[in-house]
Amino acid sequence: MKNKYFSILPIGGVQEIGSNMTLIRTSEEDIIVDCGLLFPYEECFDINYLVPDFSLLDPARISSIVITHGHEDHIGGLAHLLKAFPDLRVFASRFTLHLIQRKLEEHKIKFTYELYDHSSELKFSGVTIFPVHVNHSIPETCGLIIQSPDKEWGALYISDFKVDLRSQHEAPIDFKKIQHKLSECKHTAFFLDSTSILSDGKTTAEGELHSNLRDLMARPEERIFITLFASNVHRMNTIAKLGISEGRKIVIMGRSLKTYMESAFETGHSEIPSDQLFFPEQVKGQSGKMLIFLSGCQGDFLSALRRFSWGEDGTFKPRVGDLVVFSSKVIPGNEKKIARIYNKLTEFGVTIITASDSLIHASGHPGKEDLHLILKNFSPEFYFPIHGESYFLKKHYEFIREYYPKVSAHLIYNYQEVVLSDGTIKIEEHQAKEPRLIHGRSLEIEKSQVSQRRKMATQGAVFVSYNRNTSHIEVSLLGLPLLANDQVEHLRRKLLEQIRRDLLSREDHYLKDQVKIATRQFFNNFLGYKPVTEVHLF
Amino acid sequence: MKNKYFSILPIGGVQEIGSNMTLIRTSEEDIIVDCGLLFPYEECFDINYLVPDFSLLDPARISSIVITHGHEDHIGGLAHLLKAFPDLRVFASRFTLHLIQRKLEEHKIKFTYELYDHSSELKFSGVTIFPVHVNHSIPETCGLIIQSPDKEWGALYISDFKVDLRSQHEAPIDFKKIQHKLSECKHTAFFLDSTSILSDGKTTAEGELHSNLRDLMARPEERIFITLFASNVHRMNTIAKLGISEGRKIVIMGRSLKTYMESAFETGHSEIPSDQLFFPEQVKGQSGKMLIFLSGCQGDFLSALRRFSWGEDGTFKPRVGDLVVFSSKVIPGNEKKIARIYNKLTEFGVTIITASDSLIHASGHPGKEDLHLILKNFSPEFYFPIHGESYFLKKHYEFIREYYPKVSAHLIYNYQEVVLSDGTIKIEEHQAKEPRLIHGRSLEIEKSQVSQRRKMATQGAVFVSYNRNTSHIEVSLLGLPLLANDQVEHLRRKLLEQIRRDLLSREDHYLKDQVKIATRQFFNNFLGYKPVTEVHLF
Repeated sequence: MKNKYFSILPIGGVQEIGSNMTLIRTSEEDIIVDCGLLFPYEECFDINYLVPDFSLLDPARISSIVITHGHEDHIGGLAHLLKAFPDLRVFASRFTLHLIQRKLEEHKIKFTYELYDHSSELKFSGVTIFPVHVNHSIPETCGLIIQSPDKEWGALYISDFKVDLRSQHEAPIDFKKIQHKLSECKHTAFFLDSTSILSDGKTTAEGELHSNLRDLMARPEERIFITLFASNVHRMNTIAKLGISEGRKIVIMGRSLKTYMESAFETGHSEIPSDQLFFPEQVKGQSGKMLIFLSGCQGDFLSALRRFSWGEDGTFKPRVGDLVVFSSKVIPGNEKKIARIYNKLTEFGVTIITASDSLIHASGHPGKEDLHLILKNFSPEFYFPIHGESYFLKKHYEFIREYYPKVSAHLIYNYQEVVLSDGTIKIEEHQAKEPRLIHGRSLEIEKSQVSQRRKMATQGAVFVSYNRNTSHIEVSLLGLPLLANDQVEHLRRKLLEQIRRDLLSREDHYLKDQVKIATRQFFNNFLGYKPVTEVHLF
Repeated sequence: MKNKYFSILPIGGVQEIGSNMTLIRTSEEDIIVDCGLLFPYEECFDINYLVPDFSLLDPARISSIVITHGHEDHIGGLAHLLKAFPDLRVFASRFTLHLIQRKLEEHKIKFTYELYDHSSELKFSGVTIFPVHVNHSIPETCGLIIQSPDKEWGALYISDFKVDLRSQHEAPIDFKKIQHKLSECKHTAFFLDSTSILSDGKTTAEGELHSNLRDLMARPEERIFITLFASNVHRMNTIAKLGISEGRKIVIMGRSLKTYMESAFETGHSEIPSDQLFFPEQVKGQSGKMLIFLSGCQGDFLSALRRFSWGEDGTFKPRVGDLVVFSSKVIPGNEKKIARIYNKLTEFGVTIITASDSLIHASGHPGKEDLHLILKNFSPEFYFPIHGESYFLKKHYEFIREYYPKVSAHLIYNYQEVVLSDGTIKIEEHQAKEPRLIHGRSLEIEKSQVSQRRKMATQGAVFVSYNRNTSHIEVSLLGLPLLANDQVEHLRRKLLEQIRRDLLSREDHYLKDQVKIATRQFFNNFLGYKPVTEVHLF
C-alpha cells in the first residue's frame, strides 16, 4: 500500500440521520469526531436511542474526541463513550462544552476537556485540525479542516452547516479560513452535509424570518404560544426580543428550552434580559399580553407542547383566542404526532400558524445553492457526501457528478474508510457493526430482547403454572382482549385433561413444552394469534 | 323544534382521516353511508385498525347502507357492521360490490345487496338519494344528492372527489346532474372533502401524468419496478399499456394488486389484455424487458415492495441497473418506513424515481381550485367541511368563509348532527364514542389491554412463582436486557429471605403483592424501570 497520510472513517451518520461518529486515523493515533445518538427507525418500544458501536475503537490509539457542535446527534452518545473510554479528552467550544457538562453531570461522569474556538489549532500526532466557524441552527458550530503535517493533504469536514451571509447573531461561514487553509495543501478532499440535498434552492437565512416573526408578535391575540427547536438559541433571541418590544411577558415552559436557555445565558449567547424571563409558576393566573415558549415542537409525548395541547397543563389551558405558532419543521417520522397536536388545538378553538402558512422557519442545512457557493469558491479534488441517509448521499453524489464533473466524487457509507495517501485516495471496507439500542438507565438492550417485547406487544402474554402434586393450574392473561378471560376455565380443564391423559409420567421439560404448545394453540383458535406463553412447573 | 326534513350525522371521518361513517336520519328511517376503517394514530402494537362505534345505530330504524366507493376507509368496517346488523341491505356500484364481496367472503359473511349506478334513484322513507358520478382515485366513486320528498332540501354529500375534466378512463364529475338535482330544491347544504385543502392549486389530472409515465417506460433499464396505490385501476391501465407498447412484459407482484386487478377484470375496468399479464412464478429466471408492479407503496411490513427492497423476494433481487418508480405519495405517518425502502434500494445500487423527481402521481382529492370549481358553479346556502382531521376541517371552513362569505359555513365534528329543518339548519350534539380497536381475528381489544401491552413492550415482563410447601421460586424474564439474567439468582435469594422473615404467615394475596412489589423494585434499581410482574403462588 502507498504511504498513508491520514484517513477518514465514518462509524455512524453516513447511511442514517443520527449517531454521527467519525474516526480520523493517522499512523500515530486516531481522533474521534463527535459521538451522537440515533432515534430508532421503526417502533422499538421506548428504546430511548441508539449509539454507535465502539468495537472498532482501539484504546491504545485513542485519547481525544473533537465535538463539532452541541446537537444530540453529535453529543448524545458521549456518556456511553466516556464510560468505555474514561480517559478521553473532550475538545469542545464553550457553549457546546456547557451542554455536555450538564448532560454528563446527570450521568455522574467526570471527564477532562479542552476548550477550543474557531481560531484554535488542534495539534495531534499525524494531523493538525483547524476548526472553522460555520452557520447552522445552534451556536458555535464548527467545521474542521484537517491537514497532514507536510500539507500534502487537506480535508474539509463539515457535517452540519448552511451558508448564512447576513445573520444578525453570528458571522457568516468562514470562507476565508477555508480558502487559506486549503490553499496551503497539495491535495484536497471534502466531506459535506447531505441533509437538505433534496432542496433545490438556497437555504433560508435566519434574518429572512424576521419580518414575519415581527408581524406575528404584533398580532392582537393576548396569548401567543410558540414552539421551536430548543437548541436554536439565535431564533429564540429574535422572537423573545420582538415579543418584549410588543409589550409581551416572556414565559419559558419545558425542560429542554430551559436547559438551552441557561447554557445560552452562561456562555453569553442570550440576548434576552434575564429579568424579563418568567417561568409558568411565576405568571400563573396573570392576564395581559404574553409570549409563551413551549418545548416539544416534534410532538414528543412528555413535552410541554403536548401537555398544553391536551389541556393537561396546570398553568395554561388552550382556549378560543389563543394563537399557537410552530416556528419549526416536521422531522420525518413525527407527522402523526404533530398532526394530533394540530387537531387537539383546533378542537379547543385555537388558531395555529405553521411554517406552511408563513416563512417562520429556516433549516440549518445546505440546499443545493449553498453547496454551489462552496463548490464554486473552492475546487476540491475529491468529494464525499456525509451526514445523511443512503438515499440522500446518493442524491448528493449525483448532484456533484452532474454539476462538477471534474471533482472526483465517491459514494461512501459507514465503515468505509477513505485513505488519503500519495496523491490519491483509496477506500477500505471494514466489517460494519449495527448501532446499539439504549434503554432506561443507559443500559444496552439486545435486538433479540426487543423482539421478545415486540411479540408481547403484538400478541399479549400468558403465564401458566402447574403443580404436579396438587394438579393445580394457575393462568394469567396479560394484554389479551377481556373476552379471553371467559376462556380461562375452559383452558384449565383442557390442560388438566391433556396432562392426565398423556403427560403425567413424562419428564418436566416435555410436560412444560406440551402445556405451552397447547396453551398457544388454544388461544390461536380463539384470537387468531398465539400469545407469548411461559410455563412454570412444580 | 321545527319540522325536521332530514339530518346528516357523521359518526366517523369528520375529525380524523378514516373510519368514514355517516347517518342520514329521516323521521321514518336512518340510512348509513359507508363504514370504513381507521389506522391507529399512535403505536398500537399490531392493532390492525379501528372501526366506528355502532352504539348510536338503532336497529329498529336501520335497514340500509349506501357505499360511495371501494376504499378501505369506506368499506373496511363493513364486516363488523354486518356482524352486528346482519339484515342490512348494502347498496353499492358494481366494482365496489365486487371488492366488498371478496372481503366478506374471507369473513364468511353473507349479506343482501342492491346494485346501483350513477343513474340510479335510491328511494327511502323520508329521502331520495341520487348517486352522482365523481372523479377520484378508484373507479366508480359516487357523491350523493339527498333530497327531501317535497324538495324543500337538497344536500350534496361528496366525501372523496376531485375534478378531472379530461380523464381518458372515465367521464368528468357530473356537474349537470348536480346542477339539475339541486336546482329542484329550495334549500341546499353541501358536505365536501377536506383532504387536500392545504393544497392551493388544482389537483393534477390523471392525464397530466401520461407523458412522464411514457418517458419512464421508454427508459433503457431492462427491469422497471413500479409501485402505486393498488386501487388506482385507471393508472394501472395507463402504465401497463405504456409498458406493453415499449415491449415490456407485465408482471404483477403482491396480493392487493392482484385483488384489485381481478375485480377490475371482472367488472370491465381493466384495459390490459389478460394474456399479457404475468405473475412472478411465470417469469422466474427469464430476462428481457419487464415492467413489474409491486404492492406496498407505503412500505407496509409484509408487502411485495418491502420484501423486494430487503433483497428477500424469491423471484426478484434488486441489482445495479434496476429502476424503481414510486407513482404514489407518502401518507403521513409512513415517512420513515418509506425512507428505509429508499435507503435499502439505494444500497443495492438501484435507481429510484419518486413523485418529487417527476410528475407521476396525482391526488384523488380536491385542492382549493377544485373546490372553487364547485362553488363558482353552485351556490350552496349551507356548507360543512367533512372527510378530514380537525385541523383540515378548520382550514376548509376558513377557506369558505374567506372566499364565499355569503355561504353559511359551519365547522362540525363527528357526533354533531346537522338537522335540516324549515328553511334553516340546527346542529345537535350527541355523546361522542371512540372508535373500537380491532386485532387478529376481527376481535375488539380494549384500550386498557392495549395499555398493558404497551407496558410489556416498554418495560418487559417478569413471571415469578412460589411454592409455599417447598419454598421453591421460579423466575422468568421476558424482554429484559440479557444482563438481567445474571441478577435472577440474587433476586431469588432476596425474595426467599423476605418471605421467610416477614411473609410466611401472611395471607396469600398479601404475600403475592409483596413478592410483586419486591420484584419490581429489585429490577427498578438495576434497570431504571419496573417490568410488568405477575406472581403465582402454590
